[in-house]
Amino acid sequence: MDEIEILRKLPGLLPLNGRIAVGAGDDCAVVNMPGGRQLLAAADQVIENVHFLPDTPPRLVGRKLMNRNLSDIAAMGGTPLTALLTVAAGGRDSRWIEELISGAAEAGRLHDVPICGGDTSSLPCDGVAASLTILGEIPEGTAVLRSGARPGDGLFVTGCIGNSFPSGHHIDFVPRLAEGDFLRPRASAMIDVSDGLLLDAMRIADASGVSIVLYPEKIPLREGAVAPGAFSDGEDYELLFTSLHDFSEKLPAGLAGMTRIGQVVPRGTSPLVTPGHRPFIMEKSGYVHR
Amino acid sequence: MDEIEILRKLPGLLPLNGRIAVGAGDDCAVVNMPGGRQLLAAADQVIENVHFLPDTPPRLVGRKLMNRNLSDIAAMGGTPLTALLTVAAGGRDSRWIEELISGAAEAGRLHDVPICGGDTSSLPCDGVAASLTILGEIPEGTAVLRSGARPGDGLFVTGCIGNSFPSGHHIDFVPRLAEGDFLRPRASAMIDVSDGLLLDAMRIADASGVSIVLYPEKIPLREGAVAPGAFSDGEDYELLFTSLHDFSEKLPAGLAGMTRIGQVVPRGTSPLVTPGHRPFIMEKSGYVHR
Repeated sequence: MDEIEILRKLPGLLPLNGRIAVGAGDDCAVVNMPGGRQLLAAADQVIENVHFLPDTPPRLVGRKLMNRNLSDIAAMGGTPLTALLTVAAGGRDSRWIEELISGAAEAGRLHDVPICGGDTSSLPCDGVAASLTILGEIPEGTAVLRSGARPGDGLFVTGCIGNSFPSGHHIDFVPRLAEGDFLRPRASAMIDVSDGLLLDAMRIADASGVSIVLYPEKIPLREGAVAPGAFSDGEDYELLFTSLHDFSEKLPAGLAGMTRIGQVVPRGTSPLVTPGHRPFIMEKSGYVHR
Repeated sequence: MDEIEILRKLPGLLPLNGRIAVGAGDDCAVVNMPGGRQLLAAADQVIENVHFLPDTPPRLVGRKLMNRNLSDIAAMGGTPLTALLTVAAGGRDSRWIEELISGAAEAGRLHDVPICGGDTSSLPCDGVAASLTILGEIPEGTAVLRSGARPGDGLFVTGCIGNSFPSGHHIDFVPRLAEGDFLRPRASAMIDVSDGLLLDAMRIADASGVSIVLYPEKIPLREGAVAPGAFSDGEDYELLFTSLHDFSEKLPAGLAGMTRIGQVVPRGTSPLVTPGHRPFIMEKSGYVHR
């Protein structure tokens, strides 16, 4: 099964209507509502032996599931509201399922996000598939999409990148909700880094119809991370965004650092390559390392 | 794994906040929103070998998944808005997954309900777990809950009951959205019949703190259904509701028939038993057949 291939076809499979301002293809869908706010909605899952190992404590699995969905709300600049959780599990007892649910509920509670509904079922093979839908809100017309990057913007990333699995970051990261809220009026395009920095930068370039020049030596690396593999590791759950701001002023207390790692250029531009530096040029659905 | 046991514990596992008017335990959660409308939200799943057989065409699986969620919106008296879908599948090709997604999308389109987001993943064992979250809307304060039944109300059911699996009804039923909309200002309590008429009547009795007297001979049976097994078969996706109305007037064109099958009495009441009739008395978390 080629997941990427299915996701590419999704927009064709899923025709929208006038209530849906943004459908599948961004970090969240954006749904028009009365009252001056739009609803954000995203669904994501964690699967045993795909997203977590069988010996991972179920409480941590639940926490990861909630937090990776909260990260999608952060990537739109939104405020999370509530969540729904379904669990299908085979070869696990009810205590294990309860621990998973409790872990998700605890992670939600840290951001005042209750789980308002869900379902549990047996799975007739040994394994676990848990799915969470996150709902959030945003003032009308202010969601930061992947498609807003413009030539002249800088490319920035919060925190640091790489070595997420070995370091345990993939399971104990904190979703960048405060940073997303701060960036809502400041970022022109935003995505959370789940599938690797390079792929996610490419998604911004594709959605925005621009090229992105990315300077690998500027990318802040997590302890133990080794470039260039770190740029494709994924599961960083940092915010990758473009902006005309330079973020050199002091950030509000408690926010993660924001590092400029590249720039947005018109599609097809040959970048200025400084001797000794080999930028990545992110172009339509691919990149070249020059 | 005892699913019912986990569901009983859910409210304790899932503390709510002031934004959630109704949490887990009704057909949908009810979320307070600005603008005079409340949001309805529910999540349900279909699992291979639990909810469908491996040789079921995936398009029908997707349709069933969408329709059983739409049935939850109907059971609140609400209007569906949009849906999110996740699929985890092992031992299936991408064509199979696409067919499932298309089936869900088609069923949604019949009610102007687009799928606005989702995710697909591999499942490292042979099987399928698909989860759908449905969102809907309802004018503030008008959702028909399970808890509103009062002594003096009649008990009614739409359509007919039983023989759902052998007849194929469980896969090709039509969600009772028009009936739910008609009943919103008329029903005092409502639920959709998914786990069997008796269990779902008991849920209304429990949530409302009343007893329900149910006359089995009045229950309309689907062709091939045999009483009393039909009352516990489940997967009927009919609306079971209580009301002071008698629905003896002509119903608007296109609505399913509504049959009076019982009455709501104060908890602990001994019902008048007509000779030759043996009503079910639905009391707190159980029932007696007298």
